[in-house]
Amino acid sequence: MPLAEKALIARIQKLARRDGHQIVRGIGDDCAVLRRQSGEELVITTDLLIEGTHFSHEWHSADSVGHKCLSRGLSDIAAMGADPIAAFLSLGLPASLPQKWVDDFLRGFLRLAKHYNVTLAGGDIAESKSGIVADVMVVGSVPRGKAILRSGARPGDIIYVTGALGGSAATLQQLMRSKHTRSRLGSRHFYPEPRIAVARYLREKRLATSMIDISDGLSTDLAHICEESGARRNKRAGSLGASIVADLVPIANGADLNLALYGGEDYELLFTAGKSARVPVEIAGVAVTEIGWITKEKGMQLIEGTRKPRRLEVKGWEHFKKV
Amino acid sequence: MPLAEKALIARIQKLARRDGHQIVRGIGDDCAVLRRQSGEELVITTDLLIEGTHFSHEWHSADSVGHKCLSRGLSDIAAMGADPIAAFLSLGLPASLPQKWVDDFLRGFLRLAKHYNVTLAGGDIAESKSGIVADVMVVGSVPRGKAILRSGARPGDIIYVTGALGGSAATLQQLMRSKHTRSRLGSRHFYPEPRIAVARYLREKRLATSMIDISDGLSTDLAHICEESGARRNKRAGSLGASIVADLVPIANGADLNLALYGGEDYELLFTAGKSARVPVEIAGVAVTEIGWITKEKGMQLIEGTRKPRRLEVKGWEHFKKV
Repeated sequence: MPLAEKALIARIQKLARRDGHQIVRGIGDDCAVLRRQSGEELVITTDLLIEGTHFSHEWHSADSVGHKCLSRGLSDIAAMGADPIAAFLSLGLPASLPQKWVDDFLRGFLRLAKHYNVTLAGGDIAESKSGIVADVMVVGSVPRGKAILRSGARPGDIIYVTGALGGSAATLQQLMRSKHTRSRLGSRHFYPEPRIAVARYLREKRLATSMIDISDGLSTDLAHICEESGARRNKRAGSLGASIVADLVPIANGADLNLALYGGEDYELLFTAGKSARVPVEIAGVAVTEIGWITKEKGMQLIEGTRKPRRLEVKGWEHFKKV
Repeated sequence: MPLAEKALIARIQKLARRDGHQIVRGIGDDCAVLRRQSGEELVITTDLLIEGTHFSHEWHSADSVGHKCLSRGLSDIAAMGADPIAAFLSLGLPASLPQKWVDDFLRGFLRLAKHYNVTLAGGDIAESKSGIVADVMVVGSVPRGKAILRSGARPGDIIYVTGALGGSAATLQQLMRSKHTRSRLGSRHFYPEPRIAVARYLREKRLATSMIDISDGLSTDLAHICEESGARRNKRAGSLGASIVADLVPIANGADLNLALYGGEDYELLFTAGKSARVPVEIAGVAVTEIGWITKEKGMQLIEGTRKPRRLEVKGWEHFKKV
């Protein structure tokens, strides 16, 4: 059984204690209190992690689940070109769960928080009658008007991705086949690294016209950029389109093109930049690769060698989708 | 089954669309973007609602669950003397849940949001393999340095509560006995009303030295004020104490002193004010009642008639507490 609620909160409060002049009051009151500087906007995201849907006891160590929980939120902050400030954590825990699981989870969560100088400033704890539930909320900051939205892409913009794709889905495939259970540190499936530094660079240099993080798969997340950017330009004209060159898509070790296009949970950044923008091939140690361009015509297509381009289907992960 | 994720988000986005010059970007990007005014601080709270722990299908209509979900968060915002701005909602839903439940939940949630001019600005949706999970995050605003903390009570301060206590626990008791399932609009158990207007008045008139909302029961929440205020004054001296006069405690219809002292989920405000502060007996249509005073000596006591005062035990709701 986890520690009684009050003792558990006291432990988290002790572990989470960090300097942060922006956090006037952290854990220990009805709300956290944040002081902000003028000229800034706040960006806020929430991400829900549910046992049996997003992770399993068998495959994922508690440390990895803690890391993933925060990393998903940080990745959304990066996707806005913002810097993370504070995190809030709601935990639903079965009464049968050993406190060790909770300690390991917190270690994974707080190690990542420390690395990115994020304060765990509040949250909630309750008993869950069934599986583990971890909902994270992350607050970030961006100079006024400088958030990189999904909706800023223009026809002719070049499409880029960071890192390599399909690695997380490939690991998941291996797990399903072999029941191999080791959580390897360094694997993007177990320990995805949010691309905060890349995002900050893109924002500071004003390079990206639109951005999203790849959580549901390249095809799905690119479709979001096409739709939102089309709607912003001209509601009646509808979505923009995109052409992706298969040979350019960076594929992770152990993955293939299929996993790179449709596999989720890579948490790499997908962004667009003007044709004349000078986007480095590596930013903050992470490869940045051109993979295609935005088109005025609706629909996404995949160009493979010299063959006739084929339609790039939108088939990533979607909850409650009848398949 | 609920609507597929994308359609469900589109529906929520449509329902949630509201004016709000502070919300630069709401649902539809990786994060929401909030613009703030200078001279303000943000207060942030999260509240987790889990089927089987906080509500049951049998007793609570989806409309009431949606209302409670947001109301718990708003009550925390009120407890800081703050004004709510935006809410974020993470929903974990079983695949077997009818979309009607989700629609009714949203109706209850958004009706309350509209009433308090709160924008639903983001969230997350995922499949839950077991019960329903709803985590709400609410962001509020308070003038710089004016948040009313739990830790500001001083010995000699008078203790006040809003409304009447024990009503929610009395309803719960009736439900357990009679299996009566009607969610009555107006009942504080099914439709608790956050005391936003009372809190704003107290902040504007600078009346309260400390404040908390009564979610876990009067005795538990008063203990928080005593502990936090003692720790702030003098870490080594430890907690402050309190004396409560039983005859003064406002008891809700159908409840008794026991439920009023130890029953949770009333979401009334508990606050302290200096002896010379002029606290009205009614604020924004809500009764405000003096029930005791803060003492320098640690420990809480209950004064009943002319009998020898007895110890007021801390026994409210606590998750994972072995009883």
